[in-house]
Amino acid sequence: MNIDMIRAAAARLDGHARRTPLLTSPFLDDIAGRRVIVKPECLQHTGSFKFRGGWSAVTALDTETRKRGVIAYSSGNHAQGVAFAAAQHGAPAVIIMPNDAPRLKVENTRALGAEVVLYDRPGGEAREEVGNRIASERGLTLIKPYDDPEVIAGQGTCGLEIAAQAAEMGIDHADVLTCCGGGGLTSGIALALEADAPGLRARPCEPEGFDDTARSLRSGRIARNAKTSGSLCDAIITPAPGEITFPILSRLCGPGLVVTEDEALHAIALAFLRLKIVVEPGGAVALAAALFHGDEIDGDAVIAVCTGGNVDPDVFKLALDRFA
Amino acid sequence: MNIDMIRAAAARLDGHARRTPLLTSPFLDDIAGRRVIVKPECLQHTGSFKFRGGWSAVTALDTETRKRGVIAYSSGNHAQGVAFAAAQHGAPAVIIMPNDAPRLKVENTRALGAEVVLYDRPGGEAREEVGNRIASERGLTLIKPYDDPEVIAGQGTCGLEIAAQAAEMGIDHADVLTCCGGGGLTSGIALALEADAPGLRARPCEPEGFDDTARSLRSGRIARNAKTSGSLCDAIITPAPGEITFPILSRLCGPGLVVTEDEALHAIALAFLRLKIVVEPGGAVALAAALFHGDEIDGDAVIAVCTGGNVDPDVFKLALDRFA
Repeated sequence: MNIDMIRAAAARLDGHARRTPLLTSPFLDDIAGRRVIVKPECLQHTGSFKFRGGWSAVTALDTETRKRGVIAYSSGNHAQGVAFAAAQHGAPAVIIMPNDAPRLKVENTRALGAEVVLYDRPGGEAREEVGNRIASERGLTLIKPYDDPEVIAGQGTCGLEIAAQAAEMGIDHADVLTCCGGGGLTSGIALALEADAPGLRARPCEPEGFDDTARSLRSGRIARNAKTSGSLCDAIITPAPGEITFPILSRLCGPGLVVTEDEALHAIALAFLRLKIVVEPGGAVALAAALFHGDEIDGDAVIAVCTGGNVDPDVFKLALDRFA
Repeated sequence: MNIDMIRAAAARLDGHARRTPLLTSPFLDDIAGRRVIVKPECLQHTGSFKFRGGWSAVTALDTETRKRGVIAYSSGNHAQGVAFAAAQHGAPAVIIMPNDAPRLKVENTRALGAEVVLYDRPGGEAREEVGNRIASERGLTLIKPYDDPEVIAGQGTCGLEIAAQAAEMGIDHADVLTCCGGGGLTSGIALALEADAPGLRARPCEPEGFDDTARSLRSGRIARNAKTSGSLCDAIITPAPGEITFPILSRLCGPGLVVTEDEALHAIALAFLRLKIVVEPGGAVALAAALFHGDEIDGDAVIAVCTGGNVDPDVFKLALDRFA
């Protein structure tokens, strides 16, 4: 896993992924007490940065392998990113989802061209059994959500863009806050910044109660979450940092930041009011940290990645009711 | 008013206005039955394209004139665009608003650096009297919302971007739908497309009951709206096309499109779900026309400008409740 893989992924993504802009608002600067620069990956294809990793992984396969198809376990943003990337190559994609996944997510993933296979949760045939059986029957390649070098390389292209765009704005020293689940995006961005913008430092952000990465960074070894459900920030809830991602995070990242669910909802409302973008709770924790945890941040500017916008309308309305 | 003024405005806006990206979604393509490409000007500074015209007009003034300051009549997007553009030049800005303007709009405009002067509506001192008195006392320059060549030139920079970005996407023939009030944006875009993308044609879009531009284009002379209030699409409700804008619209634009308020709300919900952008009703009528009036549009692609995102949270929730 190195910068050359990220640059190669960037070449494959060129003209296919969106180069999302950097957004700012004087109102957010006032709240944070420093310049706040937002990278809105909610505007990426399929509504999250996951399209980058999906496209990178699908295009890294040789033609014959790709033709047989890919498989992923996800009910969320990774599913949509992989499905859409595969569909644009005419490659079959099978997405394994729990049979209690929201119908809208199932329908969206199907509409993006994937075959959705449901498994029983918690009883019945286990998720991996279902997936392994189908993968071996059809010769599908598994695309993991974060602990996969080509996926990390794809997410890292977001970091190359941040490095270039921050330089255009004259920012050469700042923390780059990222919403962090398994660490695919954060580790990819950290590697890209190390190469292209060494004055920028990646810092993972997580919701309270699911701060496995912050604790892992503090202790120097992989710590796990006590639970992996029960958060509005579902998009970034994972059991623990990955085997590939954690050593990168550990070497390159600053300390993790932890925000409350209320702070994430407040950030959603402010992104609505001031930036005119739609952010989901798990995609808003980095902005929440930038706005409400300024005492843990140094420097006169901070960059926050808003990682996704696939939010339930009811959750969005809740954020507006409480904070807009 | 010509293309050279637009190119000069583009040079002045370079590095200051955002080059908003083009957004797409396969879900919107399915609804429209053709490719739908969205230019999200809601992501522009101050939440609407109006910053372009404000910046263009402020920077077109000579230094001494600018130092004395500018004045505008507006309770909406034009006010914020002018206020923010003036503030960044250290130039005073006076915005004349009715004293029943929403407090939030007054506060926002003040926070962007302007002095807000309220006038009594409908009784009391008339708006123009208040404005003229202050302007002459202080030597302020009036910046009109649309019937001003430098404002049109600024809005036209959006058209230059569309021409270049559409070419990058391989689109050389398509209708470019714009939300249209007095016609500043639409005429600016039309001139830019004439010069840089002659296969793209601007078409104004308006809400039902306020279709002065569509009627003017049909009859060949300026027609007026029967009323200028009572629409959720307040941002684009004006009495009639402008004296400067209408001849340009008449020469270059295709027929106007007219949508219902419900269609605009539906477009807001779809922009939330599929593009992750926040659009106001008046900024959604072009997207609504692209999605729901396809039988009035030719070609396998259509470009829609989402012109602004300064929407009241309650109106946004209404759109989600009904259509998300």
